Amino acid sequence: MLALSDLNSLAQSPHQYITDQKVQHRWLSEYKNFLSIPNVLGDSVNIVRNAQLISDMLKQNGVKSELLLSGEPNSAPVVYGEVLVPGAVTTLAFYAHYDGQPVNPKQWAEGLEPFKPMLMSDRIDKGGKPISFPTDQEWVQDDWRLYARGSSDDKAGVFAIIKAYETLLKTGKKPSVNIKFFFEGEEEAGSTNLDVIFSKYKGKLKADLWVICDGPRNISGKKQVVFGVRGDVNIDLKVYASKRPLHSGNYGNWAPNPGMRLAQLLSTMKDNNGNVLIEGFYDDVIPLSETEKQALAKIPPVESILKEDLALGKPDGEGKSFMELLTLPTLNINGMASGNVGSMASNVIPTEATAVIDLRLVLGNDVKRQVRKVYDHIMRQGYFIIDHDPSDEERKQHPLLAKLVMRGAGYNAQRTPMDLPLAQKVVKAIETTIDYEVIKVPSAGGSLPLYLFEKILEVKPITVPIVNYDNNQHAENENVVLQYLWEGIETMSAIMVMK
Amino acid sequence: MLALSDLNSLAQSPHQYITDQKVQHRWLSEYKNFLSIPNVLGDSVNIVRNAQLISDMLKQNGVKSELLLSGEPNSAPVVYGEVLVPGAVTTLAFYAHYDGQPVNPKQWAEGLEPFKPMLMSDRIDKGGKPISFPTDQEWVQDDWRLYARGSSDDKAGVFAIIKAYETLLKTGKKPSVNIKFFFEGEEEAGSTNLDVIFSKYKGKLKADLWVICDGPRNISGKKQVVFGVRGDVNIDLKVYASKRPLHSGNYGNWAPNPGMRLAQLLSTMKDNNGNVLIEGFYDDVIPLSETEKQALAKIPPVESILKEDLALGKPDGEGKSFMELLTLPTLNINGMASGNVGSMASNVIPTEATAVIDLRLVLGNDVKRQVRKVYDHIMRQGYFIIDHDPSDEERKQHPLLAKLVMRGAGYNAQRTPMDLPLAQKVVKAIETTIDYEVIKVPSAGGSLPLYLFEKILEVKPITVPIVNYDNNQHAENENVVLQYLWEGIETMSAIMVMK
Repeated sequence: MLALSDLNSLAQSPHQYITDQKVQHRWLSEYKNFLSIPNVLGDSVNIVRNAQLISDMLKQNGVKSELLLSGEPNSAPVVYGEVLVPGAVTTLAFYAHYDGQPVNPKQWAEGLEPFKPMLMSDRIDKGGKPISFPTDQEWVQDDWRLYARGSSDDKAGVFAIIKAYETLLKTGKKPSVNIKFFFEGEEEAGSTNLDVIFSKYKGKLKADLWVICDGPRNISGKKQVVFGVRGDVNIDLKVYASKRPLHSGNYGNWAPNPGMRLAQLLSTMKDNNGNVLIEGFYDDVIPLSETEKQALAKIPPVESILKEDLALGKPDGEGKSFMELLTLPTLNINGMASGNVGSMASNVIPTEATAVIDLRLVLGNDVKRQVRKVYDHIMRQGYFIIDHDPSDEERKQHPLLAKLVMRGAGYNAQRTPMDLPLAQKVVKAIETTIDYEVIKVPSAGGSLPLYLFEKILEVKPITVPIVNYDNNQHAENENVVLQYLWEGIETMSAIMVMK
Repeated sequence: MLALSDLNSLAQSPHQYITDQKVQHRWLSEYKNFLSIPNVLGDSVNIVRNAQLISDMLKQNGVKSELLLSGEPNSAPVVYGEVLVPGAVTTLAFYAHYDGQPVNPKQWAEGLEPFKPMLMSDRIDKGGKPISFPTDQEWVQDDWRLYARGSSDDKAGVFAIIKAYETLLKTGKKPSVNIKFFFEGEEEAGSTNLDVIFSKYKGKLKADLWVICDGPRNISGKKQVVFGVRGDVNIDLKVYASKRPLHSGNYGNWAPNPGMRLAQLLSTMKDNNGNVLIEGFYDDVIPLSETEKQALAKIPPVESILKEDLALGKPDGEGKSFMELLTLPTLNINGMASGNVGSMASNVIPTEATAVIDLRLVLGNDVKRQVRKVYDHIMRQGYFIIDHDPSDEERKQHPLLAKLVMRGAGYNAQRTPMDLPLAQKVVKAIETTIDYEVIKVPSAGGSLPLYLFEKILEVKPITVPIVNYDNNQHAENENVVLQYLWEGIETMSAIMVMK
């Protein structure tokens, strides 16, 4: 039953509702509260608090909610909910994840903390200034940015999906499809237990299409639908020198330097144009179809916007377009460390040097095969490879010694055919909210374990991203532009009433 | 006037005194207290506390003491003292430094803290276990190690010199030379103001020879005298990519990776054998004299001890001996960093990558000329070099951009002729404490700004190191073996009564 106070909103369209100042005030306050709960996997107390809050948000909209548990130790629950719509013949499942990448608070800009959401007038590096959270009398500005870990990746997705359903409820719109809500808490760790959950709850999770809300809108600012993702796997690589740190004067020229060894090893992996030199690295790649190539050609070029925005002299991959490069496998150095830099640096020959390597995979690549190529390459550089900390004997026996360990199991890429009828309906639904053609991307650069949807649930996923591209996701100073959050809610609500 | 309690010690020889358990108990307690005061330059409160304590130790032995000030802002005082001996015609000045290298407490072994001295039964990586500081009834063991920043480098020098003088006083031995005590507090920062102090106090600091007590004894464990040092200069090198950190999936293959750029740049600087590939790097080196070559040949080989101790498969510099390699200039990577590794790593393309480079110089090299070679080399790799954080315009204009900044002014190498008569007397004095020939090293691998002694004070220095070689100086877990500390005191007292 509706309360009197709801009568006014019933007169509103979803678009009017998401731009209503009262609604935006409440949403901003609720989202701030959501972002205040740390969401790094491993912090199990806060992970559970996040899940509880999401569950509460679903219940506030009358959605029956439950936690799906993999049963694995220390795993984060999936928050699940469903709405069965009388007469609906199609079921859409909506996916987002509430966990975020690890944070190094020291790297965040002064005044910012990862889990103390702050409003800023603009991007910090463009001169953005702190804004007090507005009182009821003050206007919520569309171009304000909310800074916090997870603000874009991917609590925005969780929030947008739930608030989209609220929007329909409050404006008296009936969904045209049955809706399943699925909010994961382990995506940033590689969705470690998603396969277990999918197998265990296969019946419950039956749907005709999964809508994945993650990643950014097109760099041009336009809305886009993404039909595929790259796979991903991380490798920890460590090389060794003397087992004790040494005075760089008393031993310099005789004791090998692990940083130099790592530099020499890494430098063999890529040329100056960013091409990976590892043997067979690009061999398995399945080329794009004609439809995919045509879609790629229609995507507006973004290189000049990006070069300007990132103050970049010369990008890698000369000779190929930005979008084309995203359809190829990558090798990226996420982090690198040896000894100390800055004020803690000292005149020392460190004992080891470490790199974290990120491999993105495309259709045709296989995680184990791709990692094996890196492994074999390192061996060909003369290294003996181990998977544990070396013993003294191993150190003495193998002049070049590297520890190579995969982080988690990684996963392969996935691509959904661009002509899938239900996907076309989603595209059309989104186009009711805009006055231009939705950009259709054959494959995004980012990764989600979407192959699991095909493999276990036997269903196709498509991705509908909502946040601004310059959100610093995975890094310090993550943020979301409020307008993108509001429009994301509108996008999701349009999909829920698709024709 | 002597107290009654001193009568007993008067019967002792210096050797008996330094091995007296009552004396060792008191010294251990005093040294622990000295090491408890943090000694990292910049921590000016504690730097002054260190200077005050040293001054007090001098006064306790009746030595007139004062602080020499450079007058430069934030500079650490030199603690100076002198003893004029009736009838003495020679003046020896003794140098040591009380400041230590910066510390990263996280890198120290569990249970250890840089400024909470801990006694261990052996080297930690050899299974050493914590030992309570002994009560009066317990024996002080020679092979115990005291762990703390500065325990070897170089509060050991300060302590040994002062306690050597105490030993003479307490055993009724009259020094054969006038003694000047000179304890610096800025050595680890490159002795920034030593030139100012030398110029300002040139008259006061007049001496016939300077004895520098710093660095380790020979790796074989034998006592040695060192006739030269390498020069030293540090460079901060930073390379840039996008000005914002980027999601490694959404931008991977297009956005350049700064870690890879740094790796590629550094890898051009050395070959796999550790030879520096920078053009002209070895060009200025003045070869060793015949005397120096002969001395070098007499030094016992240490390679096999070191390889075993450091669990090292293959050292750099194949084809040259350890000692020979120490007479050549070096290029060492003290530290390297980009993004994060370990639990804070995330799937990101970082904005920059940093290395701290340490150049050691030998006779013939000049700091500015040597740095210039590195500078030119980096330019030849296509880099545009700046000395400040780049503007957006600079980033856009120069695809390869590196910031290169010297840390301090650095200094050149120094060598004292091995046949200098006063130096020979010092060697003979040390040999009264041992039953083998002192090892004579033409030039040590480490650095001290000894060229300043020649240049400003117009006097030659020689170095008499006292601590164990495996002391982890400049790194985590710095330590001193107590026997080396006691024997160091004996060495210094023998020099003070040299014939």
